[in-house]
Amino acid sequence: MRNENDKLIIGGHEFTSRFILGSGKYSMELIKAAITHAEAQIITLALRRANTNAGENILDFIPEGVTLLPNTSGARNAAEAVRIARLSREMGCGDFVKIEVIRDSRYLMPDNYETIKATEILAKEGFIVMPYMYPDLNTARDLVNAGAASIMPLASPIGSNKGLCTKEFIKMIVDEISLPVIVDAGIGRPSQACEAMEMGVAAVMANTAIATAGDVAVMAGAFKNAVEAGRMAYLAGLGRIMDKGASASSPLTGFLED
Amino acid sequence: MRNENDKLIIGGHEFTSRFILGSGKYSMELIKAAITHAEAQIITLALRRANTNAGENILDFIPEGVTLLPNTSGARNAAEAVRIARLSREMGCGDFVKIEVIRDSRYLMPDNYETIKATEILAKEGFIVMPYMYPDLNTARDLVNAGAASIMPLASPIGSNKGLCTKEFIKMIVDEISLPVIVDAGIGRPSQACEAMEMGVAAVMANTAIATAGDVAVMAGAFKNAVEAGRMAYLAGLGRIMDKGASASSPLTGFLED
Amino acid sequence: MRNENDKLIIGGHEFTSRFILGSGKYSMELIKAAITHAEAQIITLALRRANTNAGENILDFIPEGVTLLPNTSGARNAAEAVRIARLSREMGCGDFVKIEVIRDSRYLMPDNYETIKATEILAKEGFIVMPYMYPDLNTARDLVNAGAASIMPLASPIGSNKGLCTKEFIKMIVDEISLPVIVDAGIGRPSQACEAMEMGVAAVMANTAIATAGDVAVMAGAFKNAVEAGRMAYLAGLGRIMDKGASASSPLTGFLED
Amino acid sequence: MRNENDKLIIGGHEFTSRFILGSGKYSMELIKAAITHAEAQIITLALRRANTNAGENILDFIPEGVTLLPNTSGARNAAEAVRIARLSREMGCGDFVKIEVIRDSRYLMPDNYETIKATEILAKEGFIVMPYMYPDLNTARDLVNAGAASIMPLASPIGSNKGLCTKEFIKMIVDEISLPVIVDAGIGRPSQACEAMEMGVAAVMANTAIATAGDVAVMAGAFKNAVEAGRMAYLAGLGRIMDKGASASSPLTGFLED
Repeated sequence: MRNENDKLIIGGHEFTSRFILGSGKYSMELIKAAITHAEAQIITLALRRANTNAGENILDFIPEGVTLLPNTSGARNAAEAVRIARLSREMGCGDFVKIEVIRDSRYLMPDNYETIKATEILAKEGFIVMPYMYPDLNTARDLVNAGAASIMPLASPIGSNKGLCTKEFIKMIVDEISLPVIVDAGIGRPSQACEAMEMGVAAVMANTAIATAGDVAVMAGAFKNAVEAGRMAYLAGLGRIMDKGASASSPLTGFLED
Repeated sequence: MRNENDKLIIGGHEFTSRFILGSGKYSMELIKAAITHAEAQIITLALRRANTNAGENILDFIPEGVTLLPNTSGARNAAEAVRIARLSREMGCGDFVKIEVIRDSRYLMPDNYETIKATEILAKEGFIVMPYMYPDLNTARDLVNAGAASIMPLASPIGSNKGLCTKEFIKMIVDEISLPVIVDAGIGRPSQACEAMEMGVAAVMANTAIATAGDVAVMAGAFKNAVEAGRMAYLAGLGRIMDKGASASSPLTGFLED
Repeated sequence: MRNENDKLIIGGHEFTSRFILGSGKYSMELIKAAITHAEAQIITLALRRANTNAGENILDFIPEGVTLLPNTSGARNAAEAVRIARLSREMGCGDFVKIEVIRDSRYLMPDNYETIKATEILAKEGFIVMPYMYPDLNTARDLVNAGAASIMPLASPIGSNKGLCTKEFIKMIVDEISLPVIVDAGIGRPSQACEAMEMGVAAVMANTAIATAGDVAVMAGAFKNAVEAGRMAYLAGLGRIMDKGASASSPLTGFLED
Repeated sequence: MRNENDKLIIGGHEFTSRFILGSGKYSMELIKAAITHAEAQIITLALRRANTNAGENILDFIPEGVTLLPNTSGARNAAEAVRIARLSREMGCGDFVKIEVIRDSRYLMPDNYETIKATEILAKEGFIVMPYMYPDLNTARDLVNAGAASIMPLASPIGSNKGLCTKEFIKMIVDEISLPVIVDAGIGRPSQACEAMEMGVAAVMANTAIATAGDVAVMAGAFKNAVEAGRMAYLAGLGRIMDKGASASSPLTGFLED
């Protein structure tokens, strides 16, 4: 059902999938099944999981052709994020990088200001920079100016499965910013991913919702369907909502008088 | 992606689609495309649209193999609903009937009491009775006792596209009633259909959301995907929601110290 | 701040308070303090608590001048409700009666149909009948025809503190019914009582929200204030809501150029 | 009903009112009535309205004893905000200042970063600095470090009357920050002000909701009551919410068997 002509373009690369899969919090053995069911073309990964000398390397579990989106998790400021991004490229993880700068240990809220600084430095170094951010319209504008390839506002705190708590503010960013807006963090159910897509965001990322589901692979497939549904609805054009009253779907009068 | 072993059973008939399409408010020419994109196996229709001597007959536009679900729209009490249902069977529309009894012209709210009476009469006559109702748990129990084959509670007023305004009460019915619960009326967007399915309802019906969309066929496809997504999520088992705080998807510490 | 000219009239009796206090689930010693802080003029009571031979009688704790609203809790059908109402009048509890007919032990949902029957019988016997009901517009109309003095739709299940889960349907009843509409059951916080009043309901009843609060008397006072706030807002006329954008409260330009 | 021992302390000054009134968008003649009905002890004002040579001066309409909270509206960066604040003090408006830095003309979202800078400068100059901000937890922490006397997160865009769209994020700030948190901007109805207070914020500010009401003075009084209700509910301790089921307020069984 996916429209192959409806492309998501990030940093000059084209994708037909609008669902970005996270790889955290579930076993590496499930990653391949999750990617397959999700029909994902981009997968995020924490560099640490690709960095172990002993034990498993997550890279061995990701199929060829899937774009890696390493994140800078663990970074507490711009300098650390920059350092992780460079390491990632050196390790062969490619040019994409999701900037994640977190200095708050309770709610894990991203530091918008440090994120702007890291974006600026890395964009100049040729990275395709996808900054994770708290949906502040001013910050979104600064990220555009800093050279971001997309804007990744959070829906609610990472891993909370609370859903679209920032709805009104993500709508603003969609309205005002011309880069792809990708909702990241906090999406807990496919219906919420679908709603975000109906609002016109370019893509959705999910991780914890899938990792905490009863069946990881089936939930990955559910998200794929929901994201496609939301995209189709956005493209089709949503119907009007009545403030009051009702509107019959079937003729209500006259039938029995025929 | 649809699981062919996950059957919806209504009155002994098996369906693999859980999206019921309405046929009102859009042109007959679009019906075939809508059914195809929706992959619908059941379509509702107002008998009046099958009843015209002059002009088009909706039955000519519905593909073979699709189950007809004639409704009793126009009925203001049980007696009228019964009369319309009998006419429908005589006209060859089959044994399925959706009871719709409405005496309120402003909000088009179904009359639960008359609906119970009509259900009882028609179930005894061998109809497969699917009553449309305002989601009152006591009425749902009475409809079970009256011989209904499913329960069809409304989400919000017909044609309003307002969504799941009765969420808490539909959850009760799903909890307490063993018949298939099918959400009908008021669903305005695919994300709302998806959410209803996540709650454990057996199927969703939509009409106005599709008829008022910019592109009828694409929106029908969006609903199909969303309903499947919600079903898969329900079967997979939704993850927990955190009341407070956050939970990292990626390891947050130690990386740079490696 | 209460407007003494803004009267609530039920069955010909005038009240200036629009907050009805429930007396269940907290100790009789607290009732007087709760009434005082609530500035309540009507208090509901379960007849059983007025009916003990041994032990305390709730009537001894209710100040003079407060109108008693005995309920028929425990009734599973119209006949039982009628019997309890008559007993109540014989015991000297007056002409007011709140009809409560519940046959569901899990969600305690009122039986609308039996409630209509009881209302009709008791109204003819001269009672001032205030039926508790599930907010079904058709039932509300039937209750008007049956002689009710007010309509008491539930916000959410009794004792749940879940708030205004029936918002859209209570709005319909306010729109279409000319009797006072009093929201009863499920209101968990003062802000919810305030919102109901802003919607134009005539009064709000609360019990569990107060009984389960940390401080019963202070919470009773909070409800009083919130109900008055909501009433004043309704009478003042609420301002418009912007769908999009913002509107400066202060002049944004030119200041520094002066 | 206000508890005179429950003090709001900002910059060492004590207040018993927790409702801050805005003075924009309505005529100066109404200001005195609004203050009286609101029982406000703090009123915000745009310096421009105190700055006119010709015509009316808003200061002539504000009763003695009410604390002025001049804002820096019109400032597009920290430097402009600092300049306006200094002018305000020179004009005799006192030491309080609400920092408002806005560079976005569509949604009027505050610039958090410039707000931090202005706060730091003005706090060092002895101002009692109350920064208006987009509710970003990291920014709230920075404002504390910069010397703010309170934190004023927005509920939704200025003048929109959309209500508590930032609820989850204001809760975080209340949890994590020890300064008084004052919800400012976007509150459209008293029930929303009440809900914010129930969440534990220290005070609420409103302006447009009152300016766009049918009756400015009565709406000001409604807000006063609602804010007091919410404060009392917070102090009393809210009752638990049931996830599922119901809980009878009155004894349900046995009555008729007595």
